Amino acid sequence: MLMSLVIVGSVAYDALQTPHGKVDRILGGACTYSALSASYFTPVSIVGVVGEDFAQSDVDLLLSHGIDVEGLERVPGKTFFWSGVYSDDMNDRRTLVTDLNVFATFDPKLPESYRSQPYLFLGNIQPTLQRNVRGQMNGLKLVGGDTMNYWIADHRADLLATIKEWDFLLINDSEARLLSGKSNLKHAAATILNLGPKTVIIKRGEYGALLFWRNSTGVQWVAAPGYLLDEVFDPTGAGDCFAGGFMGYLASRGIDLGTAEREPRELLRAVIYGSVMGSFCCERFGPERFRDLTRAQIDARFQEFQAATAF
Amino acid sequence: MLMSLVIVGSVAYDALQTPHGKVDRILGGACTYSALSASYFTPVSIVGVVGEDFAQSDVDLLLSHGIDVEGLERVPGKTFFWSGVYSDDMNDRRTLVTDLNVFATFDPKLPESYRSQPYLFLGNIQPTLQRNVRGQMNGLKLVGGDTMNYWIADHRADLLATIKEWDFLLINDSEARLLSGKSNLKHAAATILNLGPKTVIIKRGEYGALLFWRNSTGVQWVAAPGYLLDEVFDPTGAGDCFAGGFMGYLASRGIDLGTAEREPRELLRAVIYGSVMGSFCCERFGPERFRDLTRAQIDARFQEFQAATAF
Repeated sequence: MLMSLVIVGSVAYDALQTPHGKVDRILGGACTYSALSASYFTPVSIVGVVGEDFAQSDVDLLLSHGIDVEGLERVPGKTFFWSGVYSDDMNDRRTLVTDLNVFATFDPKLPESYRSQPYLFLGNIQPTLQRNVRGQMNGLKLVGGDTMNYWIADHRADLLATIKEWDFLLINDSEARLLSGKSNLKHAAATILNLGPKTVIIKRGEYGALLFWRNSTGVQWVAAPGYLLDEVFDPTGAGDCFAGGFMGYLASRGIDLGTAEREPRELLRAVIYGSVMGSFCCERFGPERFRDLTRAQIDARFQEFQAATAF
Repeated sequence: MLMSLVIVGSVAYDALQTPHGKVDRILGGACTYSALSASYFTPVSIVGVVGEDFAQSDVDLLLSHGIDVEGLERVPGKTFFWSGVYSDDMNDRRTLVTDLNVFATFDPKLPESYRSQPYLFLGNIQPTLQRNVRGQMNGLKLVGGDTMNYWIADHRADLLATIKEWDFLLINDSEARLLSGKSNLKHAAATILNLGPKTVIIKRGEYGALLFWRNSTGVQWVAAPGYLLDEVFDPTGAGDCFAGGFMGYLASRGIDLGTAEREPRELLRAVIYGSVMGSFCCERFGPERFRDLTRAQIDARFQEFQAATAF
């Protein structure tokens, strides 16, 4: 019972520099990473915008993963371009260039064939646009999304109106603290659960992720450690791949949050698949790892996680 | 089959300031925390030194946990005194005062009754002293210890000669990087395993801990997340309580590292008990939580961990 997943967000070209090397132009963007990641679990349809410079070979990479690109609009102008340099330990990065280009006027319109799909993941874009997309869908079984510090700090009212309608919110630890005003992550999560989302997933980079929800006895949590890679080559896109693995797994199992509350282990499995996909993403530059990654490799790493955390 | 555990290290008085308040003088020291923590699992005997100012009420706290204090030497002078202030998020602390006092000339001599005990934990003291203590024991089943950046940086040769004989080394992530010269923790662990210890446990503060060992197929690992506390009141001693829970659990199960390699889940359980004990320690100032902590509360939190990480 594989359920279709619609993913909305940025499609971009990135220039990246890490201690392991540099690339001047490689496929990027949250939508791209999330979609490639989720495609290992469930059929994926994307909504995004690119310029005239978007290469057919990059469309082909998406198509080779069975991704429906009907919602990938091509318009006059250049594709969103981002350039960044990572610190030696790769825990920090500095943005050198952000050219929004055609992404500046992105106004996602969903193809008719997308509107009745049951799963929706809203990548980090302007909250009003996220809300508009959600409004175009009917019959959603599960909807969630990502955001960032800019929207939390400068578009708070808009963001709050948007996440109020979500089943889950996926953010990192510093964003959770900024959104909630609480430094203790358990308190931060409890505060965010009062804002609407029924589940909040807090990503902690190399330290893994936490997932919180509320039941009749209070705030519940599960935790997954980060996968220990032999080599982190390029962390770009790891968080988006986490989202794709998380959402892709839930969609592949036909899970809504009602199911999840009855079966918290399914939620934890989704978090682990998220960690697994984020870890693969870091093994090569940009989305290169997805050129030859197989589902068998994914499941083997999931099992390694299980062995490393089951006591 | 409860096996006795000998713990060597500092016994001190601390002055502490956290965002939750301050205390001018409270029982502290690595040996104290480790012993109180381990005492919930197995019989504990301590080796340390205190001055004439050491209060009978503090001896009584140790005795009330069944801790054998025959090896707690009392000498003329004052007890080791440490004073520190924590940052607002309690992830950093600044030392205000370190008065070694009688600890400056600490030269641990084991009572005859300690020497044939099967488990030994060497708290963070000068590596030569750690080696001397180990040399006084016969018939050890499992020995391990802690160290710190000072010994790693300025007494490396001495430290290397000491840990070469250990079954496990317990250090934090920055110390592991300093000792190994590797920033990737998996590489750091592999390097440390080549220095002698058969197991290395890397503590990551609020993010939990990792445990590594080597078998015929390579370096193996297990991971435990940190427990999410509602309130971190005072993190002093949390790492020592981790050590006490870890070692205490292994001793309570009669585990040596041969067993551990056959049953990695036992190692992970020991790490989880370490995290559980570290988390309780943070709930009140100094070792106050151990005045009324019960084994039932410990096991309930262990089960909460299990529910939060089993998928």
